[in-house]
Amino acid sequence: MVKQDRAIRTRHNILTAAAKVFEERGYQAATINEILTEAGVTKGALYFHFPSKEHLAQGVLSEQDQRMPVPERTCKVQQLVDTVVLQAYGLQTDPMVRAGVRLSLDQQAQGLDRSGPFLRWSEVGTELLEKARAQGELLPHAVPAETADVLVGSFAGVQAMSQALCDYQDLLRRVSALLRHVLPSVVMPAVLAAVDITENRGGAVHAELQHLAEQQKATAG
Amino acid sequence: MVKQDRAIRTRHNILTAAAKVFEERGYQAATINEILTEAGVTKGALYFHFPSKEHLAQGVLSEQDQRMPVPERTCKVQQLVDTVVLQAYGLQTDPMVRAGVRLSLDQQAQGLDRSGPFLRWSEVGTELLEKARAQGELLPHAVPAETADVLVGSFAGVQAMSQALCDYQDLLRRVSALLRHVLPSVVMPAVLAAVDITENRGGAVHAELQHLAEQQKATAG
Repeated sequence: MVKQDRAIRTRHNILTAAAKVFEERGYQAATINEILTEAGVTKGALYFHFPSKEHLAQGVLSEQDQRMPVPERTCKVQQLVDTVVLQAYGLQTDPMVRAGVRLSLDQQAQGLDRSGPFLRWSEVGTELLEKARAQGELLPHAVPAETADVLVGSFAGVQAMSQALCDYQDLLRRVSALLRHVLPSVVMPAVLAAVDITENRGGAVHAELQHLAEQQKATAG
Repeated sequence: MVKQDRAIRTRHNILTAAAKVFEERGYQAATINEILTEAGVTKGALYFHFPSKEHLAQGVLSEQDQRMPVPERTCKVQQLVDTVVLQAYGLQTDPMVRAGVRLSLDQQAQGLDRSGPFLRWSEVGTELLEKARAQGELLPHAVPAETADVLVGSFAGVQAMSQALCDYQDLLRRVSALLRHVLPSVVMPAVLAAVDITENRGGAVHAELQHLAEQQKATAG
């Protein structure tokens, strides 16, 4: 158990170091040696967990969608909104999320398959929208997979624009504007009227998750 | 006149070379020497037009929004749609457009102000949407600058997703889906019903512009 804990910690240290180096240098220019120095682990430990630079990048890419998920909501459109705004909040506050999103947009990263996060987020969105449709929350013509793809692609660009213009200061406002523009085309008006898409939602969902995590810890301990 | 022509040609050659090098290597890793070699011009000529790497990058960045504009349309929403789909078509076919868009998303480009294309496209969109509103094409609550920002940011991400997933093969379909999701939230239904947002629109607008350019050349000659 102790050994396993240590392996998890080492893996986490390596990924944190990789995230930092990829973010500063880009995938193409980053070297395993830089990541080694940053992580302060042995070469053997690093190669045990990640046999190549691409494995390190894929590790960072998949971290961004393995954060604690939004709790189940009765309204599936709200759950979708909460998933989106929580990711926006993570971009502002969590270096690992930031590194993963940037890496998936690194168009100079030759030989790195960057499709993973797009496809996984698309699946998450499609699943939530299909549940929303089954509950009668969507307009009749809505196609869950298409709307999910539009949201995932748009989110990637809106975050890039916010980063280029003001280093994410207006990100939550921009994401709220995106949702207010896309959702009315696919969600029943009466459902949408009860959904919170304001720019404070990201922080509220994050606080809720932290509270839940503390409760779980208290119960476990 | 001949001298001026040559200067324009040299400047164009340098920018084409810079676009190629930036796209292959990313802003951070690219060097002026590589661009010199690719362009096949003298150091003096290059520095005369572009005194630094950032100047070269800004040159590539501003090329993407200095292509021939969409002709005036009676319906301003159609003109906006045509501007968006023409840019998508350019991404598929014009290396300079591609290099400019990728450079503006290069989050590893330290010291390069990438806000220009976002702000300029945002202005173009805002102006068209303000004209659309003046003509009664928009829903009463629409805020032109906000919708323009959503479109510009979303477009940047949708193109990145299409590039990551299939090297732009489905770009026109994805951009059409984006417009079908965003426009109903701000455009009067009767106006939208008459707007062409199909995925063939990009090619049609491009052909129209080529035809116009040929006509102009014939008149000038």
